[in-house]
Amino acid sequence: MDPNRLRELLQKVAGGALGVDEALTSLRDLPFTDLGFARVDQHRALRQGAPEVVLGEPKTAEQIVTIAREIHRAGQSVMITRIGPEKAAEVRAALPFLTYNPVARIASHLASTPPERKGRVLVVTAGTGDVPVAEEAAETLRLVGARPTCLYDVGVAGLHRLLAHLPALHEANVIVAVAGMEGALPSVVGGLVRCPVIAVPTSVGYGAHLGGMAPLFTMLTTCAAGVLVTNIDNGFGAAMAAHRILTNLD
Amino acid sequence: MDPNRLRELLQKVAGGALGVDEALTSLRDLPFTDLGFARVDQHRALRQGAPEVVLGEPKTAEQIVTIAREIHRAGQSVMITRIGPEKAAEVRAALPFLTYNPVARIASHLASTPPERKGRVLVVTAGTGDVPVAEEAAETLRLVGARPTCLYDVGVAGLHRLLAHLPALHEANVIVAVAGMEGALPSVVGGLVRCPVIAVPTSVGYGAHLGGMAPLFTMLTTCAAGVLVTNIDNGFGAAMAAHRILTNLD
Amino acid sequence: MDPNRLRELLQKVAGGALGVDEALTSLRDLPFTDLGFARVDQHRALRQGAPEVVLGEPKTAEQIVTIAREIHRAGQSVMITRIGPEKAAEVRAALPFLTYNPVARIASHLASTPPERKGRVLVVTAGTGDVPVAEEAAETLRLVGARPTCLYDVGVAGLHRLLAHLPALHEANVIVAVAGMEGALPSVVGGLVRCPVIAVPTSVGYGAHLGGMAPLFTMLTTCAAGVLVTNIDNGFGAAMAAHRILTNLD
Amino acid sequence: MDPNRLRELLQKVAGGALGVDEALTSLRDLPFTDLGFARVDQHRALRQGAPEVVLGEPKTAEQIVTIAREIHRAGQSVMITRIGPEKAAEVRAALPFLTYNPVARIASHLASTPPERKGRVLVVTAGTGDVPVAEEAAETLRLVGARPTCLYDVGVAGLHRLLAHLPALHEANVIVAVAGMEGALPSVVGGLVRCPVIAVPTSVGYGAHLGGMAPLFTMLTTCAAGVLVTNIDNGFGAAMAAHRILTNLD
Amino acid sequence: MDPNRLRELLQKVAGGALGVDEALTSLRDLPFTDLGFARVDQHRALRQGAPEVVLGEPKTAEQIVTIAREIHRAGQSVMITRIGPEKAAEVRAALPFLTYNPVARIASHLASTPPERKGRVLVVTAGTGDVPVAEEAAETLRLVGARPTCLYDVGVAGLHRLLAHLPALHEANVIVAVAGMEGALPSVVGGLVRCPVIAVPTSVGYGAHLGGMAPLFTMLTTCAAGVLVTNIDNGFGAAMAAHRILTNLD
Amino acid sequence: MDPNRLRELLQKVAGGALGVDEALTSLRDLPFTDLGFARVDQHRALRQGAPEVVLGEPKTAEQIVTIAREIHRAGQSVMITRIGPEKAAEVRAALPFLTYNPVARIASHLASTPPERKGRVLVVTAGTGDVPVAEEAAETLRLVGARPTCLYDVGVAGLHRLLAHLPALHEANVIVAVAGMEGALPSVVGGLVRCPVIAVPTSVGYGAHLGGMAPLFTMLTTCAAGVLVTNIDNGFGAAMAAHRILTNLD
Amino acid sequence: MDPNRLRELLQKVAGGALGVDEALTSLRDLPFTDLGFARVDQHRALRQGAPEVVLGEPKTAEQIVTIAREIHRAGQSVMITRIGPEKAAEVRAALPFLTYNPVARIASHLASTPPERKGRVLVVTAGTGDVPVAEEAAETLRLVGARPTCLYDVGVAGLHRLLAHLPALHEANVIVAVAGMEGALPSVVGGLVRCPVIAVPTSVGYGAHLGGMAPLFTMLTTCAAGVLVTNIDNGFGAAMAAHRILTNLD
Amino acid sequence: MDPNRLRELLQKVAGGALGVDEALTSLRDLPFTDLGFARVDQHRALRQGAPEVVLGEPKTAEQIVTIAREIHRAGQSVMITRIGPEKAAEVRAALPFLTYNPVARIASHLASTPPERKGRVLVVTAGTGDVPVAEEAAETLRLVGARPTCLYDVGVAGLHRLLAHLPALHEANVIVAVAGMEGALPSVVGGLVRCPVIAVPTSVGYGAHLGGMAPLFTMLTTCAAGVLVTNIDNGFGAAMAAHRILTNLD
Repeated sequence: MDPNRLRELLQKVAGGALGVDEALTSLRDLPFTDLGFARVDQHRALRQGAPEVVLGEPKTAEQIVTIAREIHRAGQSVMITRIGPEKAAEVRAALPFLTYNPVARIASHLASTPPERKGRVLVVTAGTGDVPVAEEAAETLRLVGARPTCLYDVGVAGLHRLLAHLPALHEANVIVAVAGMEGALPSVVGGLVRCPVIAVPTSVGYGAHLGGMAPLFTMLTTCAAGVLVTNIDNGFGAAMAAHRILTNLD
Repeated sequence: MDPNRLRELLQKVAGGALGVDEALTSLRDLPFTDLGFARVDQHRALRQGAPEVVLGEPKTAEQIVTIAREIHRAGQSVMITRIGPEKAAEVRAALPFLTYNPVARIASHLASTPPERKGRVLVVTAGTGDVPVAEEAAETLRLVGARPTCLYDVGVAGLHRLLAHLPALHEANVIVAVAGMEGALPSVVGGLVRCPVIAVPTSVGYGAHLGGMAPLFTMLTTCAAGVLVTNIDNGFGAAMAAHRILTNLD
Repeated sequence: MDPNRLRELLQKVAGGALGVDEALTSLRDLPFTDLGFARVDQHRALRQGAPEVVLGEPKTAEQIVTIAREIHRAGQSVMITRIGPEKAAEVRAALPFLTYNPVARIASHLASTPPERKGRVLVVTAGTGDVPVAEEAAETLRLVGARPTCLYDVGVAGLHRLLAHLPALHEANVIVAVAGMEGALPSVVGGLVRCPVIAVPTSVGYGAHLGGMAPLFTMLTTCAAGVLVTNIDNGFGAAMAAHRILTNLD
Repeated sequence: MDPNRLRELLQKVAGGALGVDEALTSLRDLPFTDLGFARVDQHRALRQGAPEVVLGEPKTAEQIVTIAREIHRAGQSVMITRIGPEKAAEVRAALPFLTYNPVARIASHLASTPPERKGRVLVVTAGTGDVPVAEEAAETLRLVGARPTCLYDVGVAGLHRLLAHLPALHEANVIVAVAGMEGALPSVVGGLVRCPVIAVPTSVGYGAHLGGMAPLFTMLTTCAAGVLVTNIDNGFGAAMAAHRILTNLD
Repeated sequence: MDPNRLRELLQKVAGGALGVDEALTSLRDLPFTDLGFARVDQHRALRQGAPEVVLGEPKTAEQIVTIAREIHRAGQSVMITRIGPEKAAEVRAALPFLTYNPVARIASHLASTPPERKGRVLVVTAGTGDVPVAEEAAETLRLVGARPTCLYDVGVAGLHRLLAHLPALHEANVIVAVAGMEGALPSVVGGLVRCPVIAVPTSVGYGAHLGGMAPLFTMLTTCAAGVLVTNIDNGFGAAMAAHRILTNLD
Repeated sequence: MDPNRLRELLQKVAGGALGVDEALTSLRDLPFTDLGFARVDQHRALRQGAPEVVLGEPKTAEQIVTIAREIHRAGQSVMITRIGPEKAAEVRAALPFLTYNPVARIASHLASTPPERKGRVLVVTAGTGDVPVAEEAAETLRLVGARPTCLYDVGVAGLHRLLAHLPALHEANVIVAVAGMEGALPSVVGGLVRCPVIAVPTSVGYGAHLGGMAPLFTMLTTCAAGVLVTNIDNGFGAAMAAHRILTNLD
Repeated sequence: MDPNRLRELLQKVAGGALGVDEALTSLRDLPFTDLGFARVDQHRALRQGAPEVVLGEPKTAEQIVTIAREIHRAGQSVMITRIGPEKAAEVRAALPFLTYNPVARIASHLASTPPERKGRVLVVTAGTGDVPVAEEAAETLRLVGARPTCLYDVGVAGLHRLLAHLPALHEANVIVAVAGMEGALPSVVGGLVRCPVIAVPTSVGYGAHLGGMAPLFTMLTTCAAGVLVTNIDNGFGAAMAAHRILTNLD
Repeated sequence: MDPNRLRELLQKVAGGALGVDEALTSLRDLPFTDLGFARVDQHRALRQGAPEVVLGEPKTAEQIVTIAREIHRAGQSVMITRIGPEKAAEVRAALPFLTYNPVARIASHLASTPPERKGRVLVVTAGTGDVPVAEEAAETLRLVGARPTCLYDVGVAGLHRLLAHLPALHEANVIVAVAGMEGALPSVVGGLVRCPVIAVPTSVGYGAHLGGMAPLFTMLTTCAAGVLVTNIDNGFGAAMAAHRILTNLD
C-alpha cells in the first residue's frame, strides 16, 4: 500500500470521515496488498537499471508478442532472451520497435536510455564457440547501462593469449568468465585477479562434457577461492549478477 | 621481482656499478621469477585482507603443523579450514597460538588485525543444520576484516521468519544464503533484494538430496536473476567471494 | 467368483447334478477368474469418474484411432493424453466426435457428463512456461467432474504474486503446484497451507535443470512436510491423484 | 498483526490519542509483522494436529535438548525424527518426559492427546527391511491422532500375500506404500484401489538400487495413474501428507 | 588347426618332404590361426540356428546393402536389426529378396528354414507402447526356429489382465518380459513362475524414466530371485538369450 | 489349496458328509487362500530345489534368529544371504544347526538333501577380488542341488588364462561370469560359447567404476548377443537364474 | 622477451640513452609479454608437425571460412574437424583448396608436406560403426606425417578376428583402440601388447550405453595396466596423443 | 611355445628321434598352451621392467601373503598396490623381505635391479593433497627402472608456481599430471609442452567434485589436444602407461 494512501486513510479516521470498522475492513488485506505494492516499488527501482525480461525459449512467437506489447504499452523497457532468428523475425513483424541481436539471441526495446553504470566489467571466453553466451551477457549488460569489454578466445591451453591481457584483468571491477569444454578458464582468472569472478559454463563440447555439466563441475570445484558460478549457458544470469555487484559502486 | 629491487638494479646499470652482462644474468629468469613476485605482490595485497589458507581435510595433523608453522614463522596470518575438533586439538598442541572455532571448523592465527572492511554482509540459513557452513563463511569473513550479520533458520517453508527481516535484507551489500534440503531460500531472497546473492548449497538432507546435489541444482536453475552459486558446503568460498565483492567498496 | 454362483455349484454337487471332477475343473481357475471379475467391477466403479485413458505419445495416429474407436463403440468415455496438434488432427479426421485441447494436448470425448465432484482444486504454476502441464491437469480434472481454479505465474522469485492469493490457497481442498526451473513453488505453498499439495516438476529450464530432474529433486527434498510429488510434466497424474483425494469428500 | 491490536490503534487515531504520523510509523512494518502473526495463527491451527518437529539427524544431542526443552517449556508437543538409540538415550537423560520408539527412531512428548482423526490409514511394506520407514510413518500418524493399520511384507514377488488383504486395501481412505528393492508395490496397490496412494521408496537394496534412487524412479514412473511419491526413506513426510489428506474428512 | 592337417605336416617333416624351417613358418601363427578355425567351426554351429546379424542403426543404407549382399552371396541367412522403414525401403530396392517387419524393424532373409526349436517361449509386455521391442524379440525368435507366443498389454497396474493368463505363464520354458514406464512386470512374473525370466526394459516413458534407465534399475533390483536383464529396448538380445536357453532342450 | 484336499472336500459334499454351507465357509476365502496355497504349492515345488531365503544384510541378528527358527520349526530348509562373520556367529549361537560359509557369506541348513540337478554350471571370475560373489553363487547352487565348477581369475587382460579352459566353457549348460573392474569377461565368454551366460558385475574397483555401475553398463551393452545381466554383486540372483535355466533339463 | 632486446635495453640504460623510469615502464609487463613470445615460439615448433586446428561443429560455415582463410593466407596448414558434408560443401565453395574426408569429417589443406614420422601407429576398431572415429584419428595422423595402419571390426565377441593380427599388434609403437558398445577391446589389446594403448570410446550404442559413457567407464576401469583414455568419439585427440608419443622417436 | 623348443621338436621329428604320434601329443594343446607360453614370454619381457602386481585393496592380509610368497618363491619381483599401513604391517610380519612406502601405499620386493629406463618422466601435482597418488606413480616408476622427477603443488590458481618450472616441463619425455579439485592442471600443462601428458584425476575434493568425477570429466574434455586420462587416483596405471611410452626409447 502506497504510504500516501495509508496516510490519507489514517487522516480520514483521525478526522472522523471514516469509521474504525470501515478502516479495519479496508486494511484487512493490507499485509499482502501492501507487500504487493512494496514489491512493485522495489521492482521499479530495479527497473531503473533493468528492463522487464521475457524468457523466449519456451514461448511461442504469439505469446511473446502479447507479453512484450503489454510491457511496451505500459511504457516500460523490455528484453526477450533465448529467442532464435526465426522466432525473432516473427515477433518483430508484429513489434517492429524491437532491436534484435542475433549472436546474443536477445530482442529488446529500451523505453529510455539507462543511466551509465559505474565500474568496469570484463567478459572473457575460452573459445570462439563460447561467444554466443558471452554476447548474451554483454548485450544484457549494455541494456542495464554497463559498457562491458569483451576478450574472446583466451583459453588456458594457450596461456599466453590470456596473460597478454593482464592489465585489463587487473583493472576490472567484475569479470564474467565464459568457458565450455573443460571450463578451466575461471580457475586461472580467479587466481590472477582480486575482483569478483563470475564463471559461466557453456554447452560447447561433447561426450563426457555432458552438455555442460563437466565445465559446471569444474567451476564449482575450482581451487581459486571465491569464484562464483551460474547455470550452463546462462549469460543473462551472469550479467544480472554483475549488475547486482556494480550496484555497490552506485 | 619487487619494483624497488628492479629500479635499484637499473640504477646500478645506469651508474655503471653493474655491467650489462651481469644485469642480464640477474634478469635471466625474470619472466617467471618476476611473475612469481608479481603474484607475491598480488598475494600480499590480497593478504592484507586474507590469511594464507590451508585446507585441513585431506592433510594429517602433522602435515598441517609443518605448513602452518612455516607460515607463522614468515610472520603471516594463517587459517586452516575443514579441520575437525580432534585434528585441531593435535595441531594446537604443537601450535598453541592458533584459535579454534569448532562450529566453523576453522583454526586460525592473525599476525595482525585486518583493516575493517566496508559494506554490510548478511549470512542467512534455511535451517539450523546449515549453521556450520554459515559459520565457516562468517568466521572467514571475520578473518578478512568483515563483520557479518547472521540470520539463521529462516527457510521458505515458514516465510514469515524471513519476511520479518526484510530491512536487514534490503540494507545488505552482499548476502550469503546457505540452504540444504531443497535449497529454495536463495530464490526467494534473490527476488526480494537488489544486492549480490551468493547461494551455498549444503549436504544437509537425504535420499534424492544426493549429498547436496539437489539444492545445488536448485540454486543453479533459480528463476531469481543474478543469483550466484558455490560448491556444496563451501562456506569458505562464499566468504572469499563476498570478500572480492566488498573490494569494490574500498 | 460370486458366492451365489459358488453356492449353486456346491448344491449341484450335493444334489449329484455335477460330478466331482467336473466341479474340480470349474474350480481350477477359480482364484484368478474370480479376481478378474472383482477387478472389472472395481474398474467400472472407477470409470464412473474417469474416462478410459490412452497415452498418445508413443502411438501412431492409426493406433490411437483403433483404440479410441473401440472404447467409443463400447459406449465409454475416452481421453487421449500427450497428443500434439498434428497427430490430433489426423485422429479427429477419423473420429470427429473428439474434442481437442491444444494447450493441454488432450483429445477427449465424454459418453456422459461426469457427476460434479465435491471439493475445491487449485492449480498454480510458477511461470507461464509451466502452463501446458497445468492445463493437462486442469483438463483432466474437468473430465472427471472437478472444476479446478487456475492461478498461473506466481513463482517464488516474486513472492507478492503468490501472497496476493492467500485466501484461494487457504480455501482449497487440494492444490496442484506446477513448477519448472528450480521448482521452489511447492515448498512455499506447502508452508502456507494445510491441505494436500501435489508438486509437479516440469521440463521448463536448461543446463543443470537436467530436463526437469532439478525441480523434481527440489520437490522431493522439500522442507515443507507432507508435500507429494509426481513425475516430470505429469499433469495428468497430478490430476488423477487429486481425483483420488477428492474421493474422500464423496 | 492481531485484528484487535489494529482496531485499538485505529480507535486511538479516531480518538486523537495517537497522531497520524505516529500511527503511520507503527504501521510501517505492518505487512510482515502481520504476516508473521497470520503464520503463527495458522501454525497454531496446524499444531492442534501436529507437534513441533525437530529433525534429529544433523543435530547433536545437546542441540536437540536445547530445542526440545524450549518447545516443552512453551507447553507444546514435540517430536524428534531420525534420532538413533544412542543419541536418544543422551537426550532422554536430560529430558526424561520424552518417549522413544526405537524402530521408528522417533522421540516424542505430547502436551495433550490429539483429537482422534477421521479416516482409515493403511501402511503397507514390500519387505521386512522396509519396516523402520513404515514405523516412522505410523508413529508420526499416531502422534497426530490417526490410528494407522500396518500390513508388512506384502511385496509383489509373492502377490498372494498382498491379494489376501484386498478388503483392507479397499476400505482405506489413504494408503502409505513403502518399498525398497525395485519398489513395485505402489504400482500394484495403485491399480487395485481408488483412494490416494502415497509411495515411499526406501534405501533397502544394493548395487543398481543406488541408495533408493531405483525405487524412487520406479514410483515416479508408475503406470498406476495418480500415485504420489515422497523422498527416499521419508516415512515422516508420507505421514504428514496422509495427515493433510485426512484434513478433508474433518 | 585340424589335427589331421597337423599330423600330415609332421609326417612330411618326418619323411623329409618338408624342411624344418618351412614347417616352422607354417606353425608360427599356429595358435591363433588354429584358434581362428576353431571359432569358425563354432560359428558355423551357431549359424545353424541364427542368421548373420547386422546392426542397422549406425550404418547407411549403402553400407548395409554391401554387407548383406556379401552374406547372401555366401549362401548364408542374414538379418538386419534396428532398421527403420525408410532405410529398409532403400535396402530392399537393392536387395529385393529381403523381407521387412516394420514393427520389429527387422529386415531378413533365411537361406534355409531353421530347424524347429523345442520349448515354449512366451513374450509378454506391460503396455502397447512396448510392442515394437517385443516384436523385435519375437521376429528374432522366429528367425532362429522358435515359435513364440505373444501376450501384450498385461501390465501390473491392472493385475487381472496378467493373472488371466497364468496357465500360459506356467507352461513356458522361458519368458521374455518387456516393460517400459516403471518396469514392474518382470518382478510379478518372476514371482509367479519357475522358468527363466528375461526382463527387457524399454524407452517408453518420460521424465524420471530417463530413457529407460528407470525400468532397467527396477528390473536389476527386483525382489523376484533369478530374473535376468538385458539392455534397454534390446529385444534382439533377449531373443538370443532365449535361444541360448532353449539350446539346453536340444 | 491342494487339488487333493479340494477333491476330498467336493467328495464329502457329493457324499453328503459335508453340508453346502459348511463347504461354502471352507471355501469362502478360497480365491486368495487358494491363491496362497497355489503359491505355496509352487513354493513347495521350488523348495524341492531351493530353501527359504532370508536376506541377512538389513536385519539384526535377533530378527534373523526369529525368522530362521520359525522356518526350521516348520521343517523346511533355510538359507541366509549377505550375513557377515560377526552376525553369523551371533545367529549360530542361537541356532547351532546352521552351517556358515564365510567367503560366500551364507548361513544355511538343509532339511533334506536336494535332488541332484542335471546340467553343468560353470562359475568363472575375472579376478580374485570377485571370488566372494562367485562363491555366493556357487554356495547357492550347491544348496539347490547343482554342482558348479569354479574357474577363478581368468580375466581378459590375460586372455591365455581363459582360453586354456575352452573345453570346460564349451561343455557348460550355463555359465555364471563374475567380473568387477571393467567387466569385460562376459563379452569374451559370450562370444566363445553357445550356452546361456549370466553376467554378474561386482563392486570390486574404484573411481569411474562407480561401485559396480561401470561393469554393469559394460555387461548390459555387450556386443556378445544374448548375454544376460544381474544386479551388482548379486551372486545369489545369478545362481537362482541358473537354477531356473536348469529346470528345463529336468 | 628476446634476450637480445633485453640486452639492447640494458645497454641503452648503461649508455644513458634510456632513463631508469622509462626502462622500468618497458619492463613492467615484461614477464607476460615475454611469456607470450616464448609461447609463440613453442607453437611454431609444434606446428612443424601439426596444422592449425579448427573445431567445426559449433561454428557456422561462414565463421569457418573466415578463420580458415586467415590461416591459409598466413601460409599455414589448416584442418577443420567435426565438419559434416553439407557444411563442408559450403566451406569448400569459398575455399576450394581444401580437401574433404567425409568419413573422418575433416577438411584440410597442408601448406607443405609434413616430415614423415618415425614409428608404427595401429588404429583398431571393435565394430564397423566405430570406423568414423577411427578415420578421424587416421586422417589426423596422416596430416601430421604419420602413416597409420587400420584394422577394423576386430571386437572381442569374436576373438579370432583380433588374434589373427597379433604380429601387427606386437610391432606397433602406439595403438589407438576405438570401441563403442561395451568398449572391451582396449582391455584385451592392452593385455596383449607392451606399447602404449590409447583407448577411444565411441557413441555407438544405445540404452545403458549412455551416449558413450559406458565404454568410457569400461576403458577407465580396465584391468590392463597402463591403458589411457580420451573423451568419447575423440579420434582427433587420440591422434594428437599418438603424435605426442611418436615425438619421443624423433 | 618358445620358437627354439618348437624348432628342436621339429628337428627331432625330421631326424626320426621323435615319432609323429609323440610329436602330435606334445603339440596337442599347442594352440592355447602356446598362447599361454607366448603370453608368458611376453610377460617375462614385460617383467624385465615390471614386477608382478597384486592389487591389495580388496584382499585380506592373509591372501596377499599367500600370493606374494608364491611369486617370491618363483624368484620374481612383486609389488602390492593400495595397501594401507596396518595391512602392510601384517603382511610384512610374514614376509619381512618386503619394503613399504606408506605415502605411495605400495609394498614391494625386487628380485633384481631393473635396468635403468631411458627418458625423463616428470610427475606434477596441483595440490599437496594429490601427493599420495603422485607417489604411487613415482614409486611404480622407480620399481620399473625409471627415475621420475617430482614437482608438487603447482596448481593453476597460482600459475607462477608452474611457470617457474617451464624448463623441466619442456625437457620431459612424458609428464604425469595429477590433480584433484577441478583438475585443470593437465589442460595448462598440455598447452605448454609437446610431449605426452598423462592426466590423473584424484578424489581430493568435495561436493560437486563427486569423488573425483569432476576432475575426470575436466581432463577428458580438455581443450589441450592429445592429453590422455586414467581412472581416478590411478597413479599406478599412469606409471604403467608412462612405462609403455618409455618403451619406445629402448
